[in-house]
Amino acid sequence: MGEKRILCVGLVCLDIISVVERYPPEDSDSRCLSQRWQRGGNASNTCTVLALLGAPCAFMGSLAPGQAAEFILSDFKHHGVDVTHLVWQTQGETPCACCLVNCANGSRTVTLYDTNLPDVTAADFEHVNLSQYKWIHWEGRNASEQVKMLRRVEEHNRTCPASERVTTSVEVEKSRPELYQLFPYGDVVFVSKDVAKALGFFSAPEAVKGLRGRLKPGATLICAWAEAGADAMGPDGVLVHSDAFSPEKVVDTLGAGDTFNASVILALSRGRPLSAALAYGCQVAGRKCGVHGYAGIV
Amino acid sequence: MGEKRILCVGLVCLDIISVVERYPPEDSDSRCLSQRWQRGGNASNTCTVLALLGAPCAFMGSLAPGQAAEFILSDFKHHGVDVTHLVWQTQGETPCACCLVNCANGSRTVTLYDTNLPDVTAADFEHVNLSQYKWIHWEGRNASEQVKMLRRVEEHNRTCPASERVTTSVEVEKSRPELYQLFPYGDVVFVSKDVAKALGFFSAPEAVKGLRGRLKPGATLICAWAEAGADAMGPDGVLVHSDAFSPEKVVDTLGAGDTFNASVILALSRGRPLSAALAYGCQVAGRKCGVHGYAGIV
Repeated sequence: MGEKRILCVGLVCLDIISVVERYPPEDSDSRCLSQRWQRGGNASNTCTVLALLGAPCAFMGSLAPGQAAEFILSDFKHHGVDVTHLVWQTQGETPCACCLVNCANGSRTVTLYDTNLPDVTAADFEHVNLSQYKWIHWEGRNASEQVKMLRRVEEHNRTCPASERVTTSVEVEKSRPELYQLFPYGDVVFVSKDVAKALGFFSAPEAVKGLRGRLKPGATLICAWAEAGADAMGPDGVLVHSDAFSPEKVVDTLGAGDTFNASVILALSRGRPLSAALAYGCQVAGRKCGVHGYAGIV
Repeated sequence: MGEKRILCVGLVCLDIISVVERYPPEDSDSRCLSQRWQRGGNASNTCTVLALLGAPCAFMGSLAPGQAAEFILSDFKHHGVDVTHLVWQTQGETPCACCLVNCANGSRTVTLYDTNLPDVTAADFEHVNLSQYKWIHWEGRNASEQVKMLRRVEEHNRTCPASERVTTSVEVEKSRPELYQLFPYGDVVFVSKDVAKALGFFSAPEAVKGLRGRLKPGATLICAWAEAGADAMGPDGVLVHSDAFSPEKVVDTLGAGDTFNASVILALSRGRPLSAALAYGCQVAGRKCGVHGYAGIV
């Protein structure tokens, strides 16, 4: 039997990406340099990177039948991401994001439409056979349902043999207060620069130190801060830092955070120490910023 | 036999429209209020409005087979626009525009990708049976080819009976100098505020007076200037003005210029005087700014 899989729960959407020479001023007409369709969504991107790095993985999230879903499905298959846990909804549309990537500085401006497709529920998650997974990662969305899923895994871990335990991680990326209820769950918690700033912190080490009290005992908090690299603190209470690995020219930062998360999860799931996992995350994410899309990260 | 048709030559593309509460700052993540697919492109929008106003019309432009083209084709049919003169290209992709519509002020920011699909040529235009049309309108794009098409119509008009003559109009909307070679063609020339400003004019009446010398004798120049309304000058040299008809709340100005052009063309083609045509154009365009899309203009 091969390596156990990593499951990522969250959003998948269609990203329509326009690469521009400069960010367009409001009310202007401009031509872009190129345009492409890409499978997007944080959890979905994390799966893409895990698969590219050679880790068997699966995605769990909602889709609605249609042309966007067809594109997404074939791209999941192309990358070898398991889609057994896709939940097909009968109402709502597949989310779509229009992304402007400024290749002068790599900035990505995302306008997402995801307001009418139901998220996967704790009831859907009941169908997941936990013993198939060594790690389950949640992109914070419908937090109160996700808390129920995390509790199911905690319960499973309490009653199963040690070899069957599932490590959990949670990403709190958007500064929506309902997502903050996820902090006390997850063996590993990723908090974004945006959330840290919304909570009053001005740097990654400050955020890690200040937010660690919200986590369950023994958990690890990780905060990436763009060009400032990333900081983390594990159960030993030691602050760990990695500098960023900026490419010579930043061209596309869309999904850089998801790339960081995937690389850190992969390294930790293979038993690497926190400092090494953090450095690996910064390295792969840095490489990603220097290329368009993901294919070039390996 | 019914009314003769109006043919519009130019771009058709897929518009992916995200309606936002405010224009997104660069490098931000935001959710939009709604998202929709719409058939776009100036000449294509002008056809939509002509059809909605009850004028039989046809579109000529390029498409490449695929999902975007399927959507466009069914929308043309839905609106009753004749697509006999669509040219299917074997290389390139159907153009797609990502449009951010700010419903707080109606602004529309358009990022278009249309760089690899060949435009229709003068050779394609040879297949058009001119006697079927009473008016042919060109959206300025591949200007040197379009000049050849306009010359063909001039030649036709010189040799046919008066009842068979085709009126021509030209839109110079983008400030690309190669488009300025279109000024001396067209019985009616639409020049945009953008082009007028690029050529050093600060108002519509100034632009009309200053640019009229570039037109052929007997031609009419029309310039719309957003909230300032529109100005025009016909063969009699009299400056004509219409105020704008702003709706109570501006929510979507995408295609307002195309709506103006369509309404003016329709009025002139039915023999209305220039001043009445101008006022009608401002009226219908104003109504368009108060509604999302086009269905609400009638």
